Amino acid sequence: MPTKDSARRRRTLSERRQEIVTTAAELFDRHGYNNATMDDLAHAVGIAKPTLYHYFGSKEEILASIHEEFIDLLLGKHQRRRQAGLPPAQQLLEVMTDVLELMESHRGHVRVFFEHHRELPAAERDSIRDKRDAYEAQVAALIEQGTSAGTFRAVDPRIGALAVFGMCNWAYQWYRIGGSLEPRQIAYQFWDMFLRGIST
Amino acid sequence: MPTKDSARRRRTLSERRQEIVTTAAELFDRHGYNNATMDDLAHAVGIAKPTLYHYFGSKEEILASIHEEFIDLLLGKHQRRRQAGLPPAQQLLEVMTDVLELMESHRGHVRVFFEHHRELPAAERDSIRDKRDAYEAQVAALIEQGTSAGTFRAVDPRIGALAVFGMCNWAYQWYRIGGSLEPRQIAYQFWDMFLRGIST
Repeated sequence: MPTKDSARRRRTLSERRQEIVTTAAELFDRHGYNNATMDDLAHAVGIAKPTLYHYFGSKEEILASIHEEFIDLLLGKHQRRRQAGLPPAQQLLEVMTDVLELMESHRGHVRVFFEHHRELPAAERDSIRDKRDAYEAQVAALIEQGTSAGTFRAVDPRIGALAVFGMCNWAYQWYRIGGSLEPRQIAYQFWDMFLRGIST
Repeated sequence: MPTKDSARRRRTLSERRQEIVTTAAELFDRHGYNNATMDDLAHAVGIAKPTLYHYFGSKEEILASIHEEFIDLLLGKHQRRRQAGLPPAQQLLEVMTDVLELMESHRGHVRVFFEHHRELPAAERDSIRDKRDAYEAQVAALIEQGTSAGTFRAVDPRIGALAVFGMCNWAYQWYRIGGSLEPRQIAYQFWDMFLRGIST
């Protein structure tokens, strides 16, 4: 049987990069992106600092990977649903659930994505913004489809998308892992309010 | 007539503190709280650094004043409306308008309040959190009052308050001063969606 050390050595480049990104997201969430150093990160991953630099040239490069991973997860989940042809209202519930579930599985990514876009190097800042805008446009298009199908009334689709993102994304400020409500239950309540309204 | 300089000298302590807090909020918004130094701030206000320290002992103290000012504004506006006895649905529209209007008049305060709570000294962190929780509880109570009055259906009042805060507070991520919609128009659309729902 391989020892733990030999197993560690046999990790692929991409597995190791993934481990660094995951650990960095947690570290940045706990101590703040600006306060966390490459020394802290190397220590948290359990590798020497030169080894860390073998995988990532800078802290900004890791920051960019966290952003990329987060938005690609959202885009990928939504893409698979669009292909499955769910009705707009159901797709919307899944969109709302996605980000709340990521607060459970990727809480570090969530804070970094929402608070540190400005710290990205210029090229990455643009590319992430384009993906984020594309995702926002897809959710606005979903609302438009619902309106065309007669399921939703004629609201401003962009303001509708921003209301959806607001309700769900804002939860990163108050959601606690292990609280009394599961991510999907919270998403369902928000979705129900957004679709039916709270008026009698 | 007094010269500009003599007028400046005659400013009261509280006027000068106010000027520093306002300038600091703009500076922290533009450059990030962690990047902005007391040197930058003294320069932006147009005073010497020792003079700045005469008004505030530390950057954290200024951070605390920004937080205090922001939450006191929200609490004060809401308090006056409660005394005026507006119906819950109307009060809710005003609550939603308040924070969107503050993105126009106090945009630096908004970002600082939402992103730098963790950087506050412990005592201030607790006192600000208590005020923020009190405000959240007041908005939840408003939803409960609407339910009791038969205007709103029986939703979870806390989740309802978090939906309201989410839609409106999140706008600090996308709201641009001078855009095509006024703060009150955005608040109205969110309020309309939240009360009536988007379903047909």
